[in-house]
Amino acid sequence: MNMNLYGFGPPEARKWIMLDCGVTFGAETDTPGIDVIMPDPAFIAERRRDLLGIVLTHGHEDHLGAVAYLWPQLRCPVYATPFTAALLRGKLEEEDLIDEVKLRIIPLGAKFELGPFALELITLTHSIPEPNAVAITTPLGRVLHTGDWKIDPDPLIGDVTDEAALRRLGEEGVLAMVCDSTNALVEGESGSEASVRESLVHLIGTLKNRIAVTAFASNLARLESVVHAAHLHGRHVALVGRAMHRITAAARETGFLDHFQPFIDLEAAAQLPRGKVLYLCTGSQGESGAALSRIARDDFGGVTLEEGDAVVYSSRVIPGNEKSIFAVQNALAAKGVQLITDRDHFIHVSGHPCRHELTKMYQWVRPQIAIPVHGEMRHMTEHARLAKELQVPESILAPNGSLVRLAPGAPGVVDEVPSGRLYRDGILMTGNADAAVKARKSLSFAGFVGVTAILDRKARLAFDPVIHAEGIPEVVVKRFSAAIELAMDRLTKRQRDDDAELIETVRRAVRKEANDAWGKRPVTKVELVWLEE
Amino acid sequence: MNMNLYGFGPPEARKWIMLDCGVTFGAETDTPGIDVIMPDPAFIAERRRDLLGIVLTHGHEDHLGAVAYLWPQLRCPVYATPFTAALLRGKLEEEDLIDEVKLRIIPLGAKFELGPFALELITLTHSIPEPNAVAITTPLGRVLHTGDWKIDPDPLIGDVTDEAALRRLGEEGVLAMVCDSTNALVEGESGSEASVRESLVHLIGTLKNRIAVTAFASNLARLESVVHAAHLHGRHVALVGRAMHRITAAARETGFLDHFQPFIDLEAAAQLPRGKVLYLCTGSQGESGAALSRIARDDFGGVTLEEGDAVVYSSRVIPGNEKSIFAVQNALAAKGVQLITDRDHFIHVSGHPCRHELTKMYQWVRPQIAIPVHGEMRHMTEHARLAKELQVPESILAPNGSLVRLAPGAPGVVDEVPSGRLYRDGILMTGNADAAVKARKSLSFAGFVGVTAILDRKARLAFDPVIHAEGIPEVVVKRFSAAIELAMDRLTKRQRDDDAELIETVRRAVRKEANDAWGKRPVTKVELVWLEE
Repeated sequence: MNMNLYGFGPPEARKWIMLDCGVTFGAETDTPGIDVIMPDPAFIAERRRDLLGIVLTHGHEDHLGAVAYLWPQLRCPVYATPFTAALLRGKLEEEDLIDEVKLRIIPLGAKFELGPFALELITLTHSIPEPNAVAITTPLGRVLHTGDWKIDPDPLIGDVTDEAALRRLGEEGVLAMVCDSTNALVEGESGSEASVRESLVHLIGTLKNRIAVTAFASNLARLESVVHAAHLHGRHVALVGRAMHRITAAARETGFLDHFQPFIDLEAAAQLPRGKVLYLCTGSQGESGAALSRIARDDFGGVTLEEGDAVVYSSRVIPGNEKSIFAVQNALAAKGVQLITDRDHFIHVSGHPCRHELTKMYQWVRPQIAIPVHGEMRHMTEHARLAKELQVPESILAPNGSLVRLAPGAPGVVDEVPSGRLYRDGILMTGNADAAVKARKSLSFAGFVGVTAILDRKARLAFDPVIHAEGIPEVVVKRFSAAIELAMDRLTKRQRDDDAELIETVRRAVRKEANDAWGKRPVTKVELVWLEE
Repeated sequence: MNMNLYGFGPPEARKWIMLDCGVTFGAETDTPGIDVIMPDPAFIAERRRDLLGIVLTHGHEDHLGAVAYLWPQLRCPVYATPFTAALLRGKLEEEDLIDEVKLRIIPLGAKFELGPFALELITLTHSIPEPNAVAITTPLGRVLHTGDWKIDPDPLIGDVTDEAALRRLGEEGVLAMVCDSTNALVEGESGSEASVRESLVHLIGTLKNRIAVTAFASNLARLESVVHAAHLHGRHVALVGRAMHRITAAARETGFLDHFQPFIDLEAAAQLPRGKVLYLCTGSQGESGAALSRIARDDFGGVTLEEGDAVVYSSRVIPGNEKSIFAVQNALAAKGVQLITDRDHFIHVSGHPCRHELTKMYQWVRPQIAIPVHGEMRHMTEHARLAKELQVPESILAPNGSLVRLAPGAPGVVDEVPSGRLYRDGILMTGNADAAVKARKSLSFAGFVGVTAILDRKARLAFDPVIHAEGIPEVVVKRFSAAIELAMDRLTKRQRDDDAELIETVRRAVRKEANDAWGKRPVTKVELVWLEE
């Protein structure tokens, strides 16, 4: 979930640009009912007249996924290279914003100016086409914002890392480098897409029956490698899952798929002998609606896997997804399907720089200041330690909301500005302090009781209390009515005159009864209705 | 969560024994509000007169944790070796069963008979003291039930694997081996506690300030290694976290801690220089109430970690716990605490057999039938594949509830018996089909609305509808009242005569309004109250 702001000028006349505007995905445990989470743009929305543009480094969800949701609060031009722009267009269409957003398509290596900022894109390599670093030059110095990257000597799609440009920046002087920390705990190098291709070609050649390969759909080089391996071994490829179709459409639109043979459809694939077909599937993370999960539970019409077929995970396990991934793998194993993962074969490489690559980048760029981003705190602190070993004079750890001064004067965190998270709850946008999400978390632990007490004018129950209980064992619910009546009977006249006292009495009676019978106190709300007589 | 039943004799006079009776822990996502899950003993509870005993192989929660909860349904003697029995006693005391349960303490290597079953314990090695395999001999053949094991050439506490006994069984003939599958996907050997000790001694020597080591409390050899390393480097050890105290108490009671120097308490530890103290902590899995998590959020009185201190994870990441573990690590990293895990140092070994160890075991025991257990389906299928490579004539995959016939006649799954899971919900036991748990999962997605409609005898609303809403954004809730009134106004006279129709009308109005405003349909319940006039 990336959103980086760069400002220049005195506070009263400061101009801003935004680099990337992405989402993250809800974890059911912490944020029940929330699928998509994004940065709260309140700080920059207030200053949107001074926001000169959003520049997207590349097309991954965590870098562009929030544009379509937050743009109405920002309303500035958006700059992206062609493939990234094609992916964004799809999202803007869904949100009915395609005619409003000024989407400026810029070429790789573009140089352009936004107010006081002179920008230059530097081509890097990553796990999606068109990854760009952005050099941001102002009269007070230059920042290199890397975005996501690795050093892939043979990325298969797109150019190699523009080492010459990075060395040139190093020669000219870079004040600060804002850099990817994802793999700062991992020694060595992330490895090349070309070696994964080689390994996939070998692996696919050893398999006899149906093959389903799952990979991150946005990794076009990987998809191409799978197709290449399939064709070498006389297999036809069918795409399974919406993301596969969406990405290959964007790729075709921007000329990336010109040398692919066309895919076959599922009906044609079902007619082929088992040794002649390869399914390229979504679902490497065990997402319950994705292709592979549905195939595993026999819920994807037209695609069958059975004893002797193989599923190849050309992907990694994203932390937090273990249980859902393994559930799918168990269902496949139960059918007798062979599982092949990056644990036993070299069929995946990360898109982020390991320590040797970080070292190279620091040697090329030689910034005065290292600002680790894109990682958890445990990654960023280790990244800062590495930068120190590499003799970078300063490192700044800047948690979300930090306002960092790079120049003039001593660099460092100088202020904290409003920041936070927005949830997309159904079709509404809500703050992360949103009461509804917190309430749902409590509900999931101990359920809910709503009591309507209908009272006569002496504040006696005129009817049995009306109880709305949900998520509570029936044996417990049964006891509420008597407990409420007993508690009401015991009230003094003075207590009956006080609505708050009445409500609290009923609430306490329900929660105590639940605790006695069940060991839990449900969320309990009470409404009084006074009958006029 | 282990519970294995062995039966002998014709159906009408069949006698049973149970090996192990353990729990697993609830995943909030699937089972909100549930901490402990155990096997439903309905099948054997019905036959409890023929259940001759429960034999515990070792003291891990997934093998003995359910005894204290399920014993009231079983009421048979329980057999355990001394350390396992000490752990069980603590649990029986908590459930107030200590005077009821006949706990028979048996020595390692014990031979004893339960009806038609001749039992022999075989000493193995594992990550807890006193791990036993059980050889079960009947007139129709012998089964070796391995329990959890590895082959540790130097387990530090307890004897090495009793290879001679296993080879003897192999010579005498083993019909079936029921065997641990946990690491069936992992090549090589699991490694020895002795080499972890060596590595810990070296590591602790390199650290200058406070050290907190977290490990699984039940791994007494590991705890002893940490204490040993601390003392070698002039550090005093303080225990932090209840499980550490509980396990060391059981160990002291059974003579395992005789050569430990006494631990110091937290107050004494706080007085020592930073280089003289080592905290042995619970919380390696990021459990929010455990010591390390509380220390990380400055919520453990008397224990402070700060810049320059180190936390050593002498443990592994159990799949599903990544997010909570990393959250604790991020909080520690933010304080400047150095994190040392089994990723960068050799400070943990698994307690379960990798493929070389499985191979050795099959070579020693040479069973006719392999029955992989203790693992997910993906592990068990791979285990069966390995057994086939090792020329075991038959493998039987027996999912929970399978009734397997081993002899006489052709072996295989012959029936499915009632099986399932019981949840401990608060202090109640409920079935896994329990409506309350399912309902809570729905509540966590879209909240709850309870409506009390108070009607006059013409079925018109006599008061504003009373609305109990929880977990729903306020802007949505505000709209319910008008929506209900509008829907009620539109009812025909015939519809007003029908309670079910009235209820459905209100329910539908609320859910439609929520969906329009929010994109979600909350669980909605309606109660009618008829005013007599």
